[in-house]
Amino acid sequence: MIVDQNDKVRTDQWKIAPHVLELESSAIREILKISSQPGVISFAGGLPAPELFPLEDLKEAMASAIAKYGPDCVQYSLSMGITPLREMVARRATEAGAKTEIGNILITSGAQQAIELVARAFIDPGDYILTEYPTYIGALQAFDYYRARYTTVEMDAEGMIIEQVEEKLKKHKPKLIYTVSNFQNPTGITMTVPRRKALIELAMKHNVPIIDDNPYSDIRFSGERLPTLKSIGGDVVIAIRTFSKIIAPGLRLGWMNGPAEIMNYFEKVKQCMDLHTNTLCQYIVYEYITAGKLEPHIEKLRSDYKIKRDLMIRTMRETFPDGIKWTEPEGGLFLWIELPTHMSAKDLLPKAIELKVAYVHGQPFFPDRQGLNTLRLNFSNATHEGIVEGIKRLARLFKENM
Amino acid sequence: MIVDQNDKVRTDQWKIAPHVLELESSAIREILKISSQPGVISFAGGLPAPELFPLEDLKEAMASAIAKYGPDCVQYSLSMGITPLREMVARRATEAGAKTEIGNILITSGAQQAIELVARAFIDPGDYILTEYPTYIGALQAFDYYRARYTTVEMDAEGMIIEQVEEKLKKHKPKLIYTVSNFQNPTGITMTVPRRKALIELAMKHNVPIIDDNPYSDIRFSGERLPTLKSIGGDVVIAIRTFSKIIAPGLRLGWMNGPAEIMNYFEKVKQCMDLHTNTLCQYIVYEYITAGKLEPHIEKLRSDYKIKRDLMIRTMRETFPDGIKWTEPEGGLFLWIELPTHMSAKDLLPKAIELKVAYVHGQPFFPDRQGLNTLRLNFSNATHEGIVEGIKRLARLFKENM
Repeated sequence: MIVDQNDKVRTDQWKIAPHVLELESSAIREILKISSQPGVISFAGGLPAPELFPLEDLKEAMASAIAKYGPDCVQYSLSMGITPLREMVARRATEAGAKTEIGNILITSGAQQAIELVARAFIDPGDYILTEYPTYIGALQAFDYYRARYTTVEMDAEGMIIEQVEEKLKKHKPKLIYTVSNFQNPTGITMTVPRRKALIELAMKHNVPIIDDNPYSDIRFSGERLPTLKSIGGDVVIAIRTFSKIIAPGLRLGWMNGPAEIMNYFEKVKQCMDLHTNTLCQYIVYEYITAGKLEPHIEKLRSDYKIKRDLMIRTMRETFPDGIKWTEPEGGLFLWIELPTHMSAKDLLPKAIELKVAYVHGQPFFPDRQGLNTLRLNFSNATHEGIVEGIKRLARLFKENM
Repeated sequence: MIVDQNDKVRTDQWKIAPHVLELESSAIREILKISSQPGVISFAGGLPAPELFPLEDLKEAMASAIAKYGPDCVQYSLSMGITPLREMVARRATEAGAKTEIGNILITSGAQQAIELVARAFIDPGDYILTEYPTYIGALQAFDYYRARYTTVEMDAEGMIIEQVEEKLKKHKPKLIYTVSNFQNPTGITMTVPRRKALIELAMKHNVPIIDDNPYSDIRFSGERLPTLKSIGGDVVIAIRTFSKIIAPGLRLGWMNGPAEIMNYFEKVKQCMDLHTNTLCQYIVYEYITAGKLEPHIEKLRSDYKIKRDLMIRTMRETFPDGIKWTEPEGGLFLWIELPTHMSAKDLLPKAIELKVAYVHGQPFFPDRQGLNTLRLNFSNATHEGIVEGIKRLARLFKENM
């Protein structure tokens, strides 16, 4: 059988045409495979620092959950998520400035499932989505699956250039605005408050909902914490959040915060997809937070990631040749590099791998597959020595190819 | 906004028409809500016995996993599943008679996600699926979402009546054959070996793949273990399996065993959907099985569930009025009752709830919404006292309404 243009597998028993399988293979997946080889210093993935995972506290949280809730910890549970965790998430969101009730919260199997639910609920083939340029590749993959088209808005240091937004809203009437407003993946850029307000006004005026994919806002090292799009925009915004970056990604626990009637709809879709998010990890995270472990852990992440970011930027300043620009984010996991326009980060990647250092080139983050001279660096996952050594190798590579 | 016939949410900001939300609401969900009220003896859900969950062993397995694998237990992991668990599952499948390699195994977020992947990969709107009559409601929900139509085959005590299969294959050219061949949900019926062989021959002849949804085959109390459709049919079969019924459903861990190229395709779809199945529970289950805990636990389940089934059937024999028929399954979690055709199990359900006993009426398991006189009873979840008392209440209800 083959896979047709609607992505349906055609029987002739099970054969799928090889060109289809290849087509679907993601550039990033290949890079991550290579970069996980032993001896390679990887700035490629979006992996949290493994040395900071609170393993003992999670073990204690499991023991505590089992002692308190017994068999409920591993029994079937509600598609919306377990009630105590939803209540806790709603309370925390309210305290952070976005009035939220339990009905607004749907627990998902990671933020990616939230993006998938949004894509599935809203996108008909050919629909436009307005995104930043560049934008998060995992969202593009989910949207691509539903045959979305993109209308994109460039960013400066303050986030989306608002003048472009209204023009694109008028021209393409997108179904959704998708943004990573805090420490954006891939660029590290954060949208300023005036831009947030302006974006929400436009969304309301043109009746287009905003999806704010927000995994990183808690990991701010410097500068002031900003009100979220959700806290400013209310029901015009669905916020997608996750415990992946503040506790651990392998728990696959995210959540959505949006209008209750939309969450009720997603609940039914989620029930078809996987019945519910795994119960055990929900109880573990609930107990972990109840025990007061999360806030000090986030503080630790902030200070450790700041040291890593500072070290990366200092080494770049000391070693990178002139003509290379980069962002200096106040939080998150990534920074973004622009090489001179005649250079291709994509073509240099195999040479970097030869030098045993890996990054993700920027092209796959651009819906139109431009940005050949850009690349993304992750600073959370490598060790201090790895950061210094890896950046030095990249500096050498770039110098030799200027 | 409203939800249109393609299940897409229409913006006018977020409003979904109430009739659409109601339409999507499942009968079973409502029953489960009511039946979980305190004081109600519930035979309604498909829940394993909570008193048998190996909570302490799972806690130990987590401790052992963290000691051995450290941060890997909660880090991002592969979309196909963690390698040691896939290897273990492949080895166990091979030992059980179906030659399996790691490339044939994809770990899913529960069996429901496997059904969803199948539905998404194969079903174009209007495509036929051949199913048993009645069949598992969760599969119907997933298939319905993709606008499948159904061609159904009746069962006798030996499973699908094979004469009907070829006729339906010819008439409707279904995209897939979906079966729950062992201790079927809802009827408890198991397909005999000659029927299995005949079904596979027909599938090969007509070039239609078989999805064998098989959560229960390990929970056999009596009779002989049968070769699975997968072990007889090889690549014409995708087996869907799960740890939900043999360890715990709240871990949301299932797997598919099928042709490697199909699994590779599903891997990419799964990556869009939720990146990967939660890492922690995969390591917990791997360590649990490595510690030799699974086989004795399954033995315990078998003996305890047999006692519950026997108790339920004995009480039914002692108390049910003449004219009521039921299946006596050799394993699994359910048995199936046929009331005289003039009686409606659906109409009697509110009266049962008044008597503080709950079941699921059979109608939602029939794609054509027939079977009003049928109902499903779960015998794994209630206590011994609950089984006796609940069956007596049902006997009274049925007598009064004969």
